[in-house]
Amino acid sequence: MNSPKLIPSRDAKKAHFDAETIYPILDEALYCTISYCVDKQPYSIPTAFVRYEDKIYIHGSVGSHFIRTIEKGLPVCVSVTLMDGLVIAKSAFSHTVNYRSVILFAEAEKIEEIDLKKAALEWLTEKIVPNSWDYLRPMTDSELRKTTALAFKIDQASAKIRTGMPNDEPEDKELPIWSGVIPIQQQRLAPVADESSQVIPLPEHLML
Amino acid sequence: MNSPKLIPSRDAKKAHFDAETIYPILDEALYCTISYCVDKQPYSIPTAFVRYEDKIYIHGSVGSHFIRTIEKGLPVCVSVTLMDGLVIAKSAFSHTVNYRSVILFAEAEKIEEIDLKKAALEWLTEKIVPNSWDYLRPMTDSELRKTTALAFKIDQASAKIRTGMPNDEPEDKELPIWSGVIPIQQQRLAPVADESSQVIPLPEHLML
Repeated sequence: MNSPKLIPSRDAKKAHFDAETIYPILDEALYCTISYCVDKQPYSIPTAFVRYEDKIYIHGSVGSHFIRTIEKGLPVCVSVTLMDGLVIAKSAFSHTVNYRSVILFAEAEKIEEIDLKKAALEWLTEKIVPNSWDYLRPMTDSELRKTTALAFKIDQASAKIRTGMPNDEPEDKELPIWSGVIPIQQQRLAPVADESSQVIPLPEHLML
Repeated sequence: MNSPKLIPSRDAKKAHFDAETIYPILDEALYCTISYCVDKQPYSIPTAFVRYEDKIYIHGSVGSHFIRTIEKGLPVCVSVTLMDGLVIAKSAFSHTVNYRSVILFAEAEKIEEIDLKKAALEWLTEKIVPNSWDYLRPMTDSELRKTTALAFKIDQASAKIRTGMPNDEPEDKELPIWSGVIPIQQQRLAPVADESSQVIPLPEHLML
């Protein structure tokens, strides 16, 4: 992957540029935040996405202002953050968080090829709920026409990761103040059926 | 709060502009994503923040490239997203997510007044770990000098919220396909002590 010169070097020792580090973070995140500029004004929109090979894909309504703005190939910054823990030091100054984040710079490619668009929507659905695509009512041509899919190449990207315990100042380490980590976890809870599904068996792919 | 003309009207019926809706979302989120533009190139950085009255506050090292870029008063877009659930419809097309998000447009005010800077760091610490500030080793003047705190006024902001069950197409409602919601929750797990804290009692404010 290219070294992304564009990236603010906030903390160079936490930076990673390899797919082995970046892809799993993208694959775990349920959404990304996409930023773009219009007349020096930044805008950010959270949206679902999926990585497939060396691109990420998003989708939206063909009428969406956001999609119509960025589909022209505007430079975007895609940001993904996974919070893993609160790092509780002996001083407030040394408090921090454990996290895994990715920043990606790219320009949208609009997916015109209908089979690729359909595939992108399948990848997206399968990412959020694995093994669900074939169970669902098939997508119609009209739905495909109403949807825009955009791809962004992952070639200017970096990950930043912090793990482990606090780094208290040497002179603080002996203080009788508790320090450590409070892990944070995002959990999927038990599915809740809507009115139309009270007597429909929960399919296997939705069981916890 | 002013009506934020700047906001892309992706889905006007989900938009809210009142503090009663916006503040609790800001108060629950552990981090925000701050976007800014330099020469038409967007950048995004995730960072901890706290709301106090009608402003949000962030902090960073005085040497941070990110802080030094935005402290001059560049327009920024602050994005906060809380994921509440996966909305599983009978068609992929009607799949969506339940979420609460805030978008805020502002320009940084650099906090020069030392007591306010210290207060902002206290609010930030207390947000992440309530009742912890007085327990920690007090902040030193040197630590305060090494830290920049920035404030952003919450007067061009909007929240977007989706709750509830899927909105399947009327002709899909009778299909024998399970639909409903998979709630998503972010949890704090049991604290893990570091080596220096094995025999230090866990303080009450850190107990689950």
